[in-house]
Amino acid sequence: MTSSTEHFHVPAGFRLGATTCGIKQSGSPDLALIYAPEGASAAAVFTTNRLCAAPVIVGREHLAKSQGRIHAVIVNAGNANCATGEPGIEASRKSCEALAAKLGIQAAQVIPSSTGVIGVSLPTEKLIAGVDPVVAASGNSPAHAGSFACAIMTTDTRPKLASATLELQGKMVTVLGVSKGAGMIHPNMATMLAYVMTDADATPEQLSRILSGIANRTFNRINIDGDTSTNDTLMLLASGHSGVKLDGRAAQTEFAAAVEKVCASLAEQMVHDGEGVKHLVKLKIRGARTEKEAEQIASVIATSALVKTAWAGADPNWGRLLAAIGRSGVALEIGKVDIDFGDLAICRAGMGVPFDELAAHAYLSQSEFEITINLHRGAREIMYLTCDLTADYVRINADYRT
Amino acid sequence: MTSSTEHFHVPAGFRLGATTCGIKQSGSPDLALIYAPEGASAAAVFTTNRLCAAPVIVGREHLAKSQGRIHAVIVNAGNANCATGEPGIEASRKSCEALAAKLGIQAAQVIPSSTGVIGVSLPTEKLIAGVDPVVAASGNSPAHAGSFACAIMTTDTRPKLASATLELQGKMVTVLGVSKGAGMIHPNMATMLAYVMTDADATPEQLSRILSGIANRTFNRINIDGDTSTNDTLMLLASGHSGVKLDGRAAQTEFAAAVEKVCASLAEQMVHDGEGVKHLVKLKIRGARTEKEAEQIASVIATSALVKTAWAGADPNWGRLLAAIGRSGVALEIGKVDIDFGDLAICRAGMGVPFDELAAHAYLSQSEFEITINLHRGAREIMYLTCDLTADYVRINADYRT
Repeated sequence: MTSSTEHFHVPAGFRLGATTCGIKQSGSPDLALIYAPEGASAAAVFTTNRLCAAPVIVGREHLAKSQGRIHAVIVNAGNANCATGEPGIEASRKSCEALAAKLGIQAAQVIPSSTGVIGVSLPTEKLIAGVDPVVAASGNSPAHAGSFACAIMTTDTRPKLASATLELQGKMVTVLGVSKGAGMIHPNMATMLAYVMTDADATPEQLSRILSGIANRTFNRINIDGDTSTNDTLMLLASGHSGVKLDGRAAQTEFAAAVEKVCASLAEQMVHDGEGVKHLVKLKIRGARTEKEAEQIASVIATSALVKTAWAGADPNWGRLLAAIGRSGVALEIGKVDIDFGDLAICRAGMGVPFDELAAHAYLSQSEFEITINLHRGAREIMYLTCDLTADYVRINADYRT
Repeated sequence: MTSSTEHFHVPAGFRLGATTCGIKQSGSPDLALIYAPEGASAAAVFTTNRLCAAPVIVGREHLAKSQGRIHAVIVNAGNANCATGEPGIEASRKSCEALAAKLGIQAAQVIPSSTGVIGVSLPTEKLIAGVDPVVAASGNSPAHAGSFACAIMTTDTRPKLASATLELQGKMVTVLGVSKGAGMIHPNMATMLAYVMTDADATPEQLSRILSGIANRTFNRINIDGDTSTNDTLMLLASGHSGVKLDGRAAQTEFAAAVEKVCASLAEQMVHDGEGVKHLVKLKIRGARTEKEAEQIASVIATSALVKTAWAGADPNWGRLLAAIGRSGVALEIGKVDIDFGDLAICRAGMGVPFDELAAHAYLSQSEFEITINLHRGAREIMYLTCDLTADYVRINADYRT
């Protein structure tokens, strides 16, 4: 696992590229391409928001029509093509058609993604004019992956990549993930987009089975500000170029573990890069009856303005945590709950225990810390990533458009 | 309806008082008393948080034991007596016993309330030492009501009172409400406390029936930061001194309307006084199938960090509103939703319409504005009060303890 651009391996069978087509006002690269010349199996998880952007609608349609065998993903940043009605869907279709014509493939073999401002018409002509240059700029090197990662950024401050390799059946399999944003971290510039590529040989059904579990344990267990985006997309693409088929349970498990590591790393990078974030918080919920109730508690804590502002001040204010747990809707006994900050015992059986305030403050002053909550009502345990809520977050989001 | 201290009428049969017993570090008054020498019917709504403070546990117990016929309410500010275990419950009982001994009543005829920091032992001896002075300081004038309202404040910046009078059966009936805080507006200094007194003659059952509906339409439709407190208490007390019995449906309806007006005014005062609040937002949800789904949508909007920060910047960012509506869990058609800022049409049928950005910005720059969301799926409509999320809120809450 690595997150430095020097060590990425781009799986065989994929070409990545980026160009500037003029959608971002900044003039930065804003059009990005994943191209699998010989095709790739694909599976995707899309946003559950009922306000669903045009590219998500078209992407779902294309994935069904192509039966999960696609050739390309085209991503624009700077405009979400969301709340744009029927003309928005038309714009998304036209972009796919333009790329398909250029590559000599079917439009349904192209998946579109958009990220950026909501409610503004997509400048389709700019995007179409960018098709030739983005194809010309594509390649298989780590630098190409890096330029793809940069072009899909909106208010992200750094590109997010992660890769893993594993040996299966005596051959090397490579997994590469690229992503941007997280939930509605990046407000109008909404959206988490994540693309994971591999040279393993897998069917769309195998990828789909693997992907939904992984999404639940990684991207669905991070939270910046509680808002979900209209364009969220996670895709897993397999070119088959390694010649390694995912036959047998052992191979599938090993492969899924590698994909999960890549996704977990991307998820963590996204929280670290959240707007105004000063502290990354690893919430460990233990002793739950089900993973679902553990997630419910973690999510209430992670969206509590009071808890998040206490973290911003490195304040060992465990009462706010306990109060958030108390309103989570889980029928737990609050008198059994233990809370630890790192190795420091803070609360036992729902009551505060004497602890060193300065040591706790110092621990919470770190850029990354862990809080363990033991419910003592079962054997399930999850890890959930979240962050603090700072005055910078408010400034970034209050000043966004005006 | 009034919110200036000069025009309050304190209903006959009640004496209010306040004193300084030394719980608040500031040295401000922190012990307050409502005393009904001849007794009062009582009904209450308490917090639903599973982390439930000791006075709430004891209060519920006393209300049951006294069958809703009580003589006094004793409130301390500066310490919530929450997450304090069995000793905390003992402390709360002892305070009631001390007051009961002084007044020659039963301990079960006293309801205790606490508000302040969580997880610190209540200094019972200070509270008990304050019993004599707070009884001595009690009286029936508007000034006494004002001093009660001030003593229960924690991080509130102003006392909150509202009163109403109505004529029933040819006689005057008075309703007076006093409150502090709102939800977890006031973090560790948690808690909304609200006491509504009247000289109408009502049974505890009548009061209880009236109160729960009113709580749902007023205090349960306000939101500062989404956090709920461990000590929330709303009480309705009736001394009967006006001699007006609530016989017949018409009288009950008129009386309930007066109580609701008082509660609505207190609720609005609380949102206005929210930490760091620059804008009070009146969310009107129209065209809903049920009030419940309208509340669900309003609550998701009112707890969206992105929506609240946009309001802080007076940013007419309707895309964030639409995205919040889309993730509310209500199975609505987003393509039917209309949004108006005051009289300005902003979004029609899920798509933006051209509007004057500067006019919208100016409208949202006011200290109070209204947003109407029409779902076009039914005939129900609610009003929900909320506010913006400002950098000041973060500063207040991040710096609270350290």
